[in-house]
Amino acid sequence: MFKFDEELFLRLVETEGLAYRSQIEEIVDGICRKGYSNIFMIGSGGTIAMMYPYEYILKSNSSIDVHAEIAAEFVVMNNKHFSKDSVCIFTSVSGTTKETIEAIEYCKSRGATTFALVAEPDTPITKLVDHCITTGSEKHSFDTFFILLYMVVFRFMHNRNEFPQYEQFTKEVALLPRAILDAVKAFDPKAEAFAIEHKDTDYHMMVGSGNLWGNTYSYAMCVLEEMQWIKAKSIHAAEFFHGTLELVVEDTSVILLKGEDETRPLTDRVERFAEKVTKRLTVIDTKDFAMEGISEEFRKHFAVSINWALLSRISVYLERERNHPLTLRRYYRKMEY
Amino acid sequence: MFKFDEELFLRLVETEGLAYRSQIEEIVDGICRKGYSNIFMIGSGGTIAMMYPYEYILKSNSSIDVHAEIAAEFVVMNNKHFSKDSVCIFTSVSGTTKETIEAIEYCKSRGATTFALVAEPDTPITKLVDHCITTGSEKHSFDTFFILLYMVVFRFMHNRNEFPQYEQFTKEVALLPRAILDAVKAFDPKAEAFAIEHKDTDYHMMVGSGNLWGNTYSYAMCVLEEMQWIKAKSIHAAEFFHGTLELVVEDTSVILLKGEDETRPLTDRVERFAEKVTKRLTVIDTKDFAMEGISEEFRKHFAVSINWALLSRISVYLERERNHPLTLRRYYRKMEY
Repeated sequence: MFKFDEELFLRLVETEGLAYRSQIEEIVDGICRKGYSNIFMIGSGGTIAMMYPYEYILKSNSSIDVHAEIAAEFVVMNNKHFSKDSVCIFTSVSGTTKETIEAIEYCKSRGATTFALVAEPDTPITKLVDHCITTGSEKHSFDTFFILLYMVVFRFMHNRNEFPQYEQFTKEVALLPRAILDAVKAFDPKAEAFAIEHKDTDYHMMVGSGNLWGNTYSYAMCVLEEMQWIKAKSIHAAEFFHGTLELVVEDTSVILLKGEDETRPLTDRVERFAEKVTKRLTVIDTKDFAMEGISEEFRKHFAVSINWALLSRISVYLERERNHPLTLRRYYRKMEY
Repeated sequence: MFKFDEELFLRLVETEGLAYRSQIEEIVDGICRKGYSNIFMIGSGGTIAMMYPYEYILKSNSSIDVHAEIAAEFVVMNNKHFSKDSVCIFTSVSGTTKETIEAIEYCKSRGATTFALVAEPDTPITKLVDHCITTGSEKHSFDTFFILLYMVVFRFMHNRNEFPQYEQFTKEVALLPRAILDAVKAFDPKAEAFAIEHKDTDYHMMVGSGNLWGNTYSYAMCVLEEMQWIKAKSIHAAEFFHGTLELVVEDTSVILLKGEDETRPLTDRVERFAEKVTKRLTVIDTKDFAMEGISEEFRKHFAVSINWALLSRISVYLERERNHPLTLRRYYRKMEY
C-alpha cells in the first residue's frame, strides 16, 4: 500500500504494542489497590478526541465516574469532582504538548495520580507523570494508543468486577492489529478514490455518534482542517437534525462514520436523509470489515480503532492528490499568540 | 429597536418569568427532600446547548454529579450513571420535540424524576413530566429559560449547602431582565452593522469557552446554519489552536464570544491570534455591558443570558439584510427521514 509499511505496522502495533499489556495491568492494578475516586481523561485536539470513545465506553458500561476534559480548560475551571484521589490519564505523541504539560503539573500539584501514554521517549511528559508507557515511535502512535487505552479502560472495569469477559477481551485485543491491517487493505482503494474525487472539495460535513464521535471530531479538526486546510464541520449524528442538515444540497460532501455500538440507529437516520439529498455521501462503516476472530459483542468497541485506521488512509491520499503535505502548518508552533 | 418590543420583553421575562421563583423553589426543594443521586440535563440542538452552561457552572461550583446528554443518544446508550434516583431536566419551546418526548418517556419508564420548562401550554411534554413550568409564550422563551435555569441550578446547590449567597443571587437574578435589555440596546447598532457587513459572508468560525461554549455551539448550528443556511464552525477556544486556526486567513470571519468566567484567558489567546491574522474578527464581550446592580462575583454566570440576548439581535438583522426568514426550513419537520 502507498505509504504504508505493513511489517513496520505489525512490529510497532502488534509486537511492541501488545507487549505493554503486563505493564499496563501492573499500573492499573496498583492504582486500584491504592483506591481512586474517579478518572479524568485529559487532552487537547487529537488527544482529547482520542479520549471521547473511552469516556463513552465507560459511561455505557461502567459505574466508574469518568470525565473527559480539554486540558487548557481543565486547569482553570476548578472542577469540583477533581481531587487528590483522581486518576488522570493523558496521551501525547511528541511528549511536549504545552497544555498537556500544564495539566499534568496541575494534577500533580494537587496530589492526583498521573498516567500517560507517550510516543517519544525522554520528553517532558515522560519525566513528569507518575506512570508512563513510552511506545518509542511516532509512527502509528495513535493506532497503538487506541489499543493500549482499551487495555487501560477495561482493566479498570475488570478490577471493579464490571467486566467478567476481560480475559477473552484481551485475547481479542491481540487480534486487533491484524484486523486493522486487513480492514485497511480492503478499504485502501476506496480511500484513494475518495481523495481523487474530493481533491478540490472545499467543505465537508463529518457525522458520527457514540464511541465514534471522537474520531468524527478529530478527523474534521486535526486532519481536514489542520493538515489539509479544508473547512470541515463535525456534527453528532443526533444533532445533525437540529441545524446542520439545512445546509445539505445536491453536491454537499457528507462523510458518515458508522460504527456498531448502541447509537448506530442514529447514523442510519443520517444515511437515510443524506441518500435522498446529496450525491456526495461517503459512508465509512466498520461493519464492512471482517475483524477476523473478534466476537460479535466486542466488535463495537474495536470499531474505534478500525475506523481511525481507515480514515488515516484517506489522509495519505489527500496529501498526494492535493499536493499538500500533512505536516504543513501556517501557525501552530510557528507563531506566538 | 427593530423587531423588539421592550414592554413585551419585560412583561414576559421580568414580570412573568421572575414570578416562577417560588414554584421552582418548591419543585427543587421537594426533589431534594426526596433525595436524588445525580442530575441529567437532556435536550437536542438548542435545548442541549442551553444546558451546557449549567453543566459547566455545576462542575466548577458544586459536587453535584451532573450529566448533559443529547436526548437521542441518551435513550440508546444505556448510561450506567442514570437510575430511578436521577433528576432529569428538560426544556422545550414547542413542547412537541420528538427526541425530548422519547427521552422523557425513557426516564419515566425507569422511575426517574422529570422536570421541564416549556413555552407552549397543553403540549405532550407539559403533560408527560412530573414537574413542569409552562411559561406560556414562545416569544423570548430562551431568555426566560436561561433565567429559570439559574434558579433551578443554584437552588440545587443552595440545598446542598454549597451556595450560601443564594438569597443575594436571587435578588440579582431579578435585576437580570433589565440588565439584558440595557445590554441589547447598547449592542443593537453593532448587531445591525455586523449583519450589513456580513450579509454575503458564507462561512463563520464561532469561538467560545467555559459557560459560553453552549451559546457558541448553538448559535453556529441553530441560527447560522439552520435559520440562515450559512456554514458555521463552532470551536472551543482551547481547541481552536489544535486545528481550526490553520484555516484563518485575512478575510476569515471569526466571531469570538467572551464571557467572564475562569476560562476568559482562553478567549484572550484567540483574540491575540485572530487580531494578527484576520481583518474580520468580531468580539462580543459581556464585559462591555454594565449589568447594573449585578455583583462582580455573579457577572460571570449572567454572561450566559447577556450573550445569548446579544446574539439574538444579530439574528433579526441577518434575517432582514439577507432577506432570509429565520423560520425558513428545507427539511426539518418537512421531510421524513
